[in-house]
Amino acid sequence: MSVPKTIEWIGDVDGHIRMIDQTLLPGELRMIDCRDLPTVWEAIKMLRVRGAPALGVTAAMAVVLGVQGAGQEEAAFFSKLDEACAHIATSRPTAVNLFWALDRMKRLAASLRGEPVEEIRRRLLDEAQAIRDEDAAMCRAIGEAGEHLIKEGMGVLTHCNAGGLATAEYGTALAPMYVAHERGRGFRVYADETRPLLQGARLTAWELQGAGIDVTVICDNMAACVMAAGKIDLVITGADRIAGNGDTANKVGTYGVATLARAHGIPFYVAAPSSTFDLSISSGAEIPIEHRDPREVACGFGQRTVPGNVPCYNQAFDVTPVELIAGFVTERGLMATGTGQKIADFLA
Amino acid sequence: MSVPKTIEWIGDVDGHIRMIDQTLLPGELRMIDCRDLPTVWEAIKMLRVRGAPALGVTAAMAVVLGVQGAGQEEAAFFSKLDEACAHIATSRPTAVNLFWALDRMKRLAASLRGEPVEEIRRRLLDEAQAIRDEDAAMCRAIGEAGEHLIKEGMGVLTHCNAGGLATAEYGTALAPMYVAHERGRGFRVYADETRPLLQGARLTAWELQGAGIDVTVICDNMAACVMAAGKIDLVITGADRIAGNGDTANKVGTYGVATLARAHGIPFYVAAPSSTFDLSISSGAEIPIEHRDPREVACGFGQRTVPGNVPCYNQAFDVTPVELIAGFVTERGLMATGTGQKIADFLA
Repeated sequence: MSVPKTIEWIGDVDGHIRMIDQTLLPGELRMIDCRDLPTVWEAIKMLRVRGAPALGVTAAMAVVLGVQGAGQEEAAFFSKLDEACAHIATSRPTAVNLFWALDRMKRLAASLRGEPVEEIRRRLLDEAQAIRDEDAAMCRAIGEAGEHLIKEGMGVLTHCNAGGLATAEYGTALAPMYVAHERGRGFRVYADETRPLLQGARLTAWELQGAGIDVTVICDNMAACVMAAGKIDLVITGADRIAGNGDTANKVGTYGVATLARAHGIPFYVAAPSSTFDLSISSGAEIPIEHRDPREVACGFGQRTVPGNVPCYNQAFDVTPVELIAGFVTERGLMATGTGQKIADFLA
Repeated sequence: MSVPKTIEWIGDVDGHIRMIDQTLLPGELRMIDCRDLPTVWEAIKMLRVRGAPALGVTAAMAVVLGVQGAGQEEAAFFSKLDEACAHIATSRPTAVNLFWALDRMKRLAASLRGEPVEEIRRRLLDEAQAIRDEDAAMCRAIGEAGEHLIKEGMGVLTHCNAGGLATAEYGTALAPMYVAHERGRGFRVYADETRPLLQGARLTAWELQGAGIDVTVICDNMAACVMAAGKIDLVITGADRIAGNGDTANKVGTYGVATLARAHGIPFYVAAPSSTFDLSISSGAEIPIEHRDPREVACGFGQRTVPGNVPCYNQAFDVTPVELIAGFVTERGLMATGTGQKIADFLA
C-alpha cells in the first residue's frame, strides 16, 4: 500500500503514536501525532481511528504512552499503568478489541514484576508492536487465502470499509484485493458508498485509489442494476460477528447485497479473522443488533435531509444467513460453505 | 392533503402562479409567486418544481402568464404567445409533459382565432386549470384503484417521490396511501431516502407527514433488513416509462427493491397513469437509461464524500422486469400481472 500507515509508533519507548485522522478523509489526509493520553483518548472517542483491529493496536500503543515519565519506582509505575488502562477503557466502552489489547498489555507487565521499569516499558512497546504485526500478518494471510477468487478482468463489489484503515494494514475484505493487485491482476472494485456514514465512499475508495486499484463508487441502491448489467463477478465483505452456523452480522446493507448477489448468481464471500467466529452463538437470530442515533440518517451530510419530526430507522448492522454465503476467507484459509464441513471443525 | 398545493394559479387571467420551492424542502416551506415568465422559467430550470405532471401544469400556466399585457391586437397576441411557448420550452428540453402542455395550449389558442383576445386569454387559463384538474383527477383515480391494497396495520415501502409534489395533487405511488388514510386506515410507510438526490427523505417524508400519515425514513440499504424483520407487507413505486411487456423504468434503486421484495415474498406494485405505458417499446431492454453527473454522488450534500479522482457511477434509472411486478395501478383500474391479460388489451 502506498498510503500512509493507519497507525504506527514513532521512535523508542519515549516516542509517540502517529495515526491518520479518518474523520477528515477523503477531503484531507492529516496525520495526528499523539504524544499524551488525552490526545489518543480523544482520537478514539471521535472515531479518528476506528475498526476493531486498529482499535486494539491503538489501545496497546496508548498504554506505552501512558507510562511515559513514570519514574523508576515499581509501585508508582504499576499504579500509573493501571490508571492509564482504566482511562483508555472509557474511550469506547463497547470495543471488545480495545479491552482485549489492554488486558494483554497488563498481563505482560504483571509477568515482568521485579524487572527494571525501563525493561518493562521496552517490553510493553515490543508487545504493542507485536499486536500490530500480528494483525498485519493475519490480514495478509486473509489476503493470501482469498486472492485467487479475484481473476483478471473481474468486477468485485464490496460494502462498507473492511480495509487497511480498519486494521493495522491490508484489512480483511480488501486484503484479497491488495494481494491480487500486487500479483499484477487487473480488476475493478465497485464500492457501495454505505449510508449513513459513507465508509465505502470516504474510506474504501480512498485507500484502494491510494494503492492504485481501479475503484468506482456507487450509491447503495445501484448495486442491483450494476449486477444486472453484468459488471459484478464477485462480492466480498467483512464481518463483525459470525455465529456458529455461519450466519454473519456486518454493516447494515450487507444482507441486501448478499440477497441481490444470490438473485444474480454472483458468489458472496465474507472475509474475517477466525476470532470473528463466536461459537457460543448458534445462529444469527441470537446476535444482538445495535440501533444508532437516527440523526446519522437525518443529518448525515452536515445538513438536515429529513423533515424535523419524521422518525428515521437506523439499524447499524444486519445478519446475512449462511445460505447466502459462498465461503469464509480467514487467516487459516478459505472455508467453502455447503460442503458439509462444520465451522467448529474448520476452526479446531 | 393538508400541505399547500404544489402549484396553483392565483386570481384571474391577470393573476399569477404560486408554487412550493421544492429545493428548500424539507428545511423550509417557502412559496414562490411567479408573476412573470423569467421567474417561472428559472423555477423550472432550477428544479423548484419537478415531476412530469407538475411540469405540464406549470408550462400551461406559464403560457397564461406569458401573454399578459399582450394588448387587444390578434397578430401581436399570437406573436407573444409563440414567443412565450418557445421560451418556456428551453427551460427543461427533455421534459415531455412540458411540450405536451405547450402544444395543447397553442392548439386551443389557434382554434380560437377570430375571438377577442380577452376571450382567448380566459379560455387559456381555463385550459391550464383543466390540465391541472385532469391530472389531479387521474391521480385520484389511481388512488381509488389501489387503496384496497393497503390494509389496516400494514407496512408499505416506497422509493423516491411519486407523490403530490411531482403532480398537481395526490401523486401516483402515494395516491393509494392518501386515499387509504382518508378512509381511516392506519398503516406505516417506510420511505427509502433515495440516493443520490434524496427525494424520499426530503419530499416523500415531508408530504406524507404533512398529510398525517405515519412515515419513517430508511437508508436505501436498509430495505432488505426491514423486509426481513417483517415490517413490510407491500411495496408501491411510481414509473417513468413502462414497456409494452410491462418492464418498468423508474428511479435507480427500484429494481433492487423489487428483487428484495420478491426474495421476501412481498408484492411489488407500480402506480402510474396509463400514459406511462409506451407500447412502441416491446421490452425494458429498449428503454434508454440516463446517466447523470457523477458529482450528484460525490458531492451531493454540499461537501465532497468521495475522493477527488475516484469515478462515481450515476445511473439515474433502472429497469424492473415485469416478472417482479405484481400489478399496475392506473387511473383505469388495477391490472394484475400473470393473469394472461395483455397490457395492450387493458389499455384499449
